[in-house]
Amino acid sequence: MRYTISALAKALSARLEGDGSLEITGAAEPAGAGPEDLALAMQPAYAEGLTQGQARVAILWEGADWRALGLEAALFVARPRFAMAHLTARLDAGPEIEPGVHSTAIIHPSAEIGDGAAIGPFVVIGRGVRIGQNARIASHCSIAEEARIGDDVLLHSGARIGARVVIGDRFIGQPGCVIGADGLSFVTPEKSGVEKARESLGDQGEIVAQSWTRIHSLGSVRIGDDVELGASTCVDRGTIRDTVVGRGCKIDNLCHIAHNVVMGEDCLCAAQTGIAGSTRLGDRVICGGQTGIADNLTVGSDVIFGGGTKVLSKVPAGQVMLGYPAVKMATHVDMYKAMRRLPRVMNRLFAAEKAVPKSDGDD
Amino acid sequence: MRYTISALAKALSARLEGDGSLEITGAAEPAGAGPEDLALAMQPAYAEGLTQGQARVAILWEGADWRALGLEAALFVARPRFAMAHLTARLDAGPEIEPGVHSTAIIHPSAEIGDGAAIGPFVVIGRGVRIGQNARIASHCSIAEEARIGDDVLLHSGARIGARVVIGDRFIGQPGCVIGADGLSFVTPEKSGVEKARESLGDQGEIVAQSWTRIHSLGSVRIGDDVELGASTCVDRGTIRDTVVGRGCKIDNLCHIAHNVVMGEDCLCAAQTGIAGSTRLGDRVICGGQTGIADNLTVGSDVIFGGGTKVLSKVPAGQVMLGYPAVKMATHVDMYKAMRRLPRVMNRLFAAEKAVPKSDGDD
Amino acid sequence: MRYTISALAKALSARLEGDGSLEITGAAEPAGAGPEDLALAMQPAYAEGLTQGQARVAILWEGADWRALGLEAALFVARPRFAMAHLTARLDAGPEIEPGVHSTAIIHPSAEIGDGAAIGPFVVIGRGVRIGQNARIASHCSIAEEARIGDDVLLHSGARIGARVVIGDRFIGQPGCVIGADGLSFVTPEKSGVEKARESLGDQGEIVAQSWTRIHSLGSVRIGDDVELGASTCVDRGTIRDTVVGRGCKIDNLCHIAHNVVMGEDCLCAAQTGIAGSTRLGDRVICGGQTGIADNLTVGSDVIFGGGTKVLSKVPAGQVMLGYPAVKMATHVDMYKAMRRLPRVMNRLFAAEKAVPKSDGDD
Repeated sequence: MRYTISALAKALSARLEGDGSLEITGAAEPAGAGPEDLALAMQPAYAEGLTQGQARVAILWEGADWRALGLEAALFVARPRFAMAHLTARLDAGPEIEPGVHSTAIIHPSAEIGDGAAIGPFVVIGRGVRIGQNARIASHCSIAEEARIGDDVLLHSGARIGARVVIGDRFIGQPGCVIGADGLSFVTPEKSGVEKARESLGDQGEIVAQSWTRIHSLGSVRIGDDVELGASTCVDRGTIRDTVVGRGCKIDNLCHIAHNVVMGEDCLCAAQTGIAGSTRLGDRVICGGQTGIADNLTVGSDVIFGGGTKVLSKVPAGQVMLGYPAVKMATHVDMYKAMRRLPRVMNRLFAAEKAVPKSDGDD
Repeated sequence: MRYTISALAKALSARLEGDGSLEITGAAEPAGAGPEDLALAMQPAYAEGLTQGQARVAILWEGADWRALGLEAALFVARPRFAMAHLTARLDAGPEIEPGVHSTAIIHPSAEIGDGAAIGPFVVIGRGVRIGQNARIASHCSIAEEARIGDDVLLHSGARIGARVVIGDRFIGQPGCVIGADGLSFVTPEKSGVEKARESLGDQGEIVAQSWTRIHSLGSVRIGDDVELGASTCVDRGTIRDTVVGRGCKIDNLCHIAHNVVMGEDCLCAAQTGIAGSTRLGDRVICGGQTGIADNLTVGSDVIFGGGTKVLSKVPAGQVMLGYPAVKMATHVDMYKAMRRLPRVMNRLFAAEKAVPKSDGDD
Repeated sequence: MRYTISALAKALSARLEGDGSLEITGAAEPAGAGPEDLALAMQPAYAEGLTQGQARVAILWEGADWRALGLEAALFVARPRFAMAHLTARLDAGPEIEPGVHSTAIIHPSAEIGDGAAIGPFVVIGRGVRIGQNARIASHCSIAEEARIGDDVLLHSGARIGARVVIGDRFIGQPGCVIGADGLSFVTPEKSGVEKARESLGDQGEIVAQSWTRIHSLGSVRIGDDVELGASTCVDRGTIRDTVVGRGCKIDNLCHIAHNVVMGEDCLCAAQTGIAGSTRLGDRVICGGQTGIADNLTVGSDVIFGGGTKVLSKVPAGQVMLGYPAVKMATHVDMYKAMRRLPRVMNRLFAAEKAVPKSDGDD
């Protein structure tokens, strides 16, 4: 693709200075930019890179002197990261999937696939599946019986969509994502040690050797519009009702969304986050990488979990949390500072005590 | 499937009250139940839902008045969660895989597959593989040379079974599970920093730049009867002997079972659990989500790890553990309470000290 | 394969005692060894096993009396673990992939594949792909347009290589690994709560309901020579520049390497490690299992992270770190010891205070 700078300026709501007739075909970091790249130099730290690269035009930080930087034109934007979204959307051709249905794809005669589909080699689409318009489905994907997917879906290679899963428009599934595996739901004939330890906060009582009996997952998964799932991320089917991922949720690689979970809208989960069974999240909850949320909890809207947070109890709306177990970030900072001091304080306390006879057998 | 309530009552060992000739075709939460659904209302909290839905029959909490709830029949069970296992098993049709071997499946002429198999599109089965009766193998699975699998296996789409893996009866593999990848086993020519840091608890000594040489995995994986592996879960092959997963183990999505691990029977690992190389678990060990167990450890039978526990040393049988590093849950609770108090206590101590001259340069 | 002991001794730089003309076909732990196995008994603890098994020859610990152990020959090596690398490499036949290109593989006419390739069933190779000599590519792999891979690559079943990914020689990809998924990169129109909480260390300010706009990933992934990726491990493409994994890195199962990450050479990541966006690692960094490293950080060369470490700030070269948040391992040990004492100390402090009137409302 080829864009004039003046067209780009308009698309990005950017202020243009210099020669708007210049054309670019890609974007690059300043030092590695070629003559047809738009250099991305939103901070003064990139000035030096500009002189090393060959860019003739750049997005610059406010106040930069583009002529002095050797450029022929410059764009200025109010919120550089947001401009990146529009810019990269224009320049991304997406994966190459040939239009039409590949001759090796196996599509059940009862499946309905909308106009404009591009379906790659070795795709399998089951009985009664319905997919909207402009589907792009890469090689090796499977979509099981009675699944329904909206318009403009993009499934990368090897995505797995289970039976009766319902997905909205504009869904993106990265390679190897799995929607609709069975939930991990097992029960012992008598109360198990886990059930007893939960009730007593740590005592599993008398131990009885028991095996696990499977609770099958009869529910499925419902996913709203504009959702994206990362590579090898799993959303399990519900036990009786459906597991739900709300409109606009963005979930990174290797995440686990367990059976019966209900996620609100516009949540964002960084990689390796796990949300255990039957937990409910409000809207716009943000999970840093490797966040874990225990089962059967409620997390309010607009909660932010820092990376690695392990959530063991419910969280009201609007909190910023960190740690294991999760506490408010400010509390975590206080606790951490105190802990850093603790060894020395402890040594001092014990040194002081040496002068007097010990009253108990501690330590 | 269609069941009379009296037949279901018998199957679930439930007490039936009311019209046993009613028929149901599915199960549902009370508020969303249709007229042919069995409503699941095992707690009084569901009473309101029953009046919103259209169920004519429900499983109820002990003492509930089914007539007053507008029902025509009711079931009462001693342990509702256990009844769920039997009920859902009956109502789950499982994934649709057409009987017989799909024309696109590639099965090595030397492979032996028992009667009753349903093998889907694009499945690859290698030299000398032996699979028992009634195998259900969904699309895109691969089973490599000389693997042996028992009766009644269910492999969901894209499961990968490596060479010489041995699996018992009734195995269930969720989409994308991987059995028999190579273990992560590498060595440096001279002692590495890790080896030295382990010996010294933190000092890696003089740093020498070295590359890693691969130790190949010659062993395979042995899995007992009645095991289930979650989506994208990996069990690596052993270095010399086999990695072992005992009968009845249930392992959730995105778990990692490393080379040479030996798991006893009836263990249960929630999602994203990782068990590092050569660690041995007893029977009925339970790992909450995101549990991590370091390498070369021993964990006794009936140990329970809460979610997020990181196990850095061996654990005797019967313990309930939590935290990083793992400690007994009761100890964790005490430590956590003390830590919550710590910042204020610390501030008080330091305020008191301000009156006297500091004796050292702390803080 | 069949080897004489004298040939093996030469290959392993081992000292041979006894009958060098004996032949072996495999390796085994001492107690399970058959008459054609080389028993691996590098420690005196294995002496008993040797008497239980049928091995005629073993690798022994220095000083062992092989005749008294009933053996006909013995090998002695300076660094047993390193000898294992050479020994297992000789005995590992690797996965069976028939030579040549399987008739079901779909290879774009513009793709170039070097001599000696073995490409399995249902493999898809896209436009303009270039692969070096002796490629072994198992069933169900996909390699997208314009990817370039060096010589002697081994891709296990279901590996996914995205568009324009560049990989060096001798790469090994375990089943289901994904190279070149899109990064998780999203932005809100106005500053988000996360951005504000990061600036203020915990205060997200006034809450504004916003949805996420996607920043597309225009970069790709560059991987050096001699790299190995584990099962279901993901390396995401960069936003503008490429994500980079340096020569000799070994990355275990279920790891996440985010967009724009730059890893140096010879790094080793154990399973379920996650490295967040734009973080840079030096050479020879070692991550224990379930390590997490936050985004936009720098980690120096030769850093060692113990299992479960969560890294929230930059780390200078040569450190050995543990904990959440990560601290030096020695500091961690001190803090942990102090924390174990803390509950009792706290109780004593509060007991002492009971005698005097409380000055504030704490606790």
